[in-house]
Amino acid sequence: MKADDIELVTRRPVVDGATQLVGIVGSPIAQVRAPEVWTGLFHFHGLNIICVPFHMLPEGLPDFFAGARRLRNLAGLIVTIPHKPAAVNLVDGLTERAALVRSVNFICIRPDGRWVGDIVDGIGFVENLKAHGVDPRGMRALLIGTGGVGTAIAFALAESGVSELFVHDRDTARSDGLAARLSNLERPVRTGPPDPAGFDLVVNASPLGMKSDDPMPMDATRIGAGSVVADVIVHETELLRRAAALGCRTIDGTGMMDHQLAFMAGHMGLGEMDFSAATARRIAAAARR
Amino acid sequence: MKADDIELVTRRPVVDGATQLVGIVGSPIAQVRAPEVWTGLFHFHGLNIICVPFHMLPEGLPDFFAGARRLRNLAGLIVTIPHKPAAVNLVDGLTERAALVRSVNFICIRPDGRWVGDIVDGIGFVENLKAHGVDPRGMRALLIGTGGVGTAIAFALAESGVSELFVHDRDTARSDGLAARLSNLERPVRTGPPDPAGFDLVVNASPLGMKSDDPMPMDATRIGAGSVVADVIVHETELLRRAAALGCRTIDGTGMMDHQLAFMAGHMGLGEMDFSAATARRIAAAARR
Repeated sequence: MKADDIELVTRRPVVDGATQLVGIVGSPIAQVRAPEVWTGLFHFHGLNIICVPFHMLPEGLPDFFAGARRLRNLAGLIVTIPHKPAAVNLVDGLTERAALVRSVNFICIRPDGRWVGDIVDGIGFVENLKAHGVDPRGMRALLIGTGGVGTAIAFALAESGVSELFVHDRDTARSDGLAARLSNLERPVRTGPPDPAGFDLVVNASPLGMKSDDPMPMDATRIGAGSVVADVIVHETELLRRAAALGCRTIDGTGMMDHQLAFMAGHMGLGEMDFSAATARRIAAAARR
Repeated sequence: MKADDIELVTRRPVVDGATQLVGIVGSPIAQVRAPEVWTGLFHFHGLNIICVPFHMLPEGLPDFFAGARRLRNLAGLIVTIPHKPAAVNLVDGLTERAALVRSVNFICIRPDGRWVGDIVDGIGFVENLKAHGVDPRGMRALLIGTGGVGTAIAFALAESGVSELFVHDRDTARSDGLAARLSNLERPVRTGPPDPAGFDLVVNASPLGMKSDDPMPMDATRIGAGSVVADVIVHETELLRRAAALGCRTIDGTGMMDHQLAFMAGHMGLGEMDFSAATARRIAAAARR
């Protein structure tokens, strides 16, 4: 770097002694977008907060939580893979949806120091559908994959007013358990085969499609041309390509994260400020220029 | 903030998922300069590392250390007031000087995960003297205040070749203990009264002078006109004002921090890069423009 670059690089102190931290804890961590997205939003609003990655292996999580709980300048903690289920047992309380989903992806640090776990993955997914003009209300929906993210989405879809919801997992005990828990909500949730025929909304919440040589999560030839097909994976999967070729509306997982920002910001007491997906994208676009 | 400011604020991502962290742990923390100074230097060198404040009360330190030791993206940890003595008992090993001084202000994280505590306050102090053209070699020196910083400076002065070193503390047990430990180095270190008469180098390493109504750490009227008078406090103290009025050369504590940067960078495996005090100041000056 040339000396001339000093001014560009240091024009604004990005962190000082009074900076508050929002952490994101996970492993692997290098790929997460939260530090850039959140830090851009905080600085846009003139807040002295940054989002920092905490790279943590599963065996270290209890010690890490015990230490992080002592921090006086931690404003919130985002929890990502593989720590979302384990975090359930390391907090002082859970929101209703986190208790049902048995997974935590954001920890709200209350003024009295209590750590309360919430899961907003599912809300982010449904908000992203709505931002694409797709309201799940009244739809017949099929959800493949009932791990942490799939469970959160199932809960959010059930809450959003789908007319029917079928869930499927290769681990049938897992999908059976989810259907049983959700049935307490008096929503029509059942397990079913991974057959997309006849559904208005088809969702892949399994990891199949992350790698190019993954098998398909379902028989894509059976997708109806009028279906909406959504995937939680952030790139265009083979499933989405085939669905698009059939004439379906397709929605990838990219926006699901951005639509969680406002909910997390609310937990940090910043609900009055603009943490919308649209503003996050404007800032990201400016950063790439 | 106006929308036009987005580009300025986010022109360069300051933190992303792959960012390494250097922490500074202390209480209070808002006043520390390390996050700005180090982050500016890291970015100047094109390194994806930032320095973040960790606000931690003393009772939380053992838990915090246990958790921070699990982090896989922590590149180093700076320890400041009030944690320097406690950190001695929370690491796997100490440098010789940290063992003697019984205080830690930087933790080197070895490739095998071992945490080794070092203390470079004293080295920074002596390097700052030299940067001002003052070589302590052969000088008769008086040091007031034998807390953590004073002890580190006493050790570094003894190592730097002063001809005589007298130390004083209002807590005489503390200064007696320091003199006994340093005597093992076969350096002429003795305790003495807080009387600056006849010394070439007079150092205040006590906190007296931080507040404007503090008593003087010594009888300033007894300072010789040819003495060098140095203070660890980062603003111009009443002691320095009176010494300057007597015609003495005076040096405040500002540079002491900047001259530790290169030693800490060496501990982070960055010893080949320019972490000099001069470069740190150029970057800080550019940031203020």
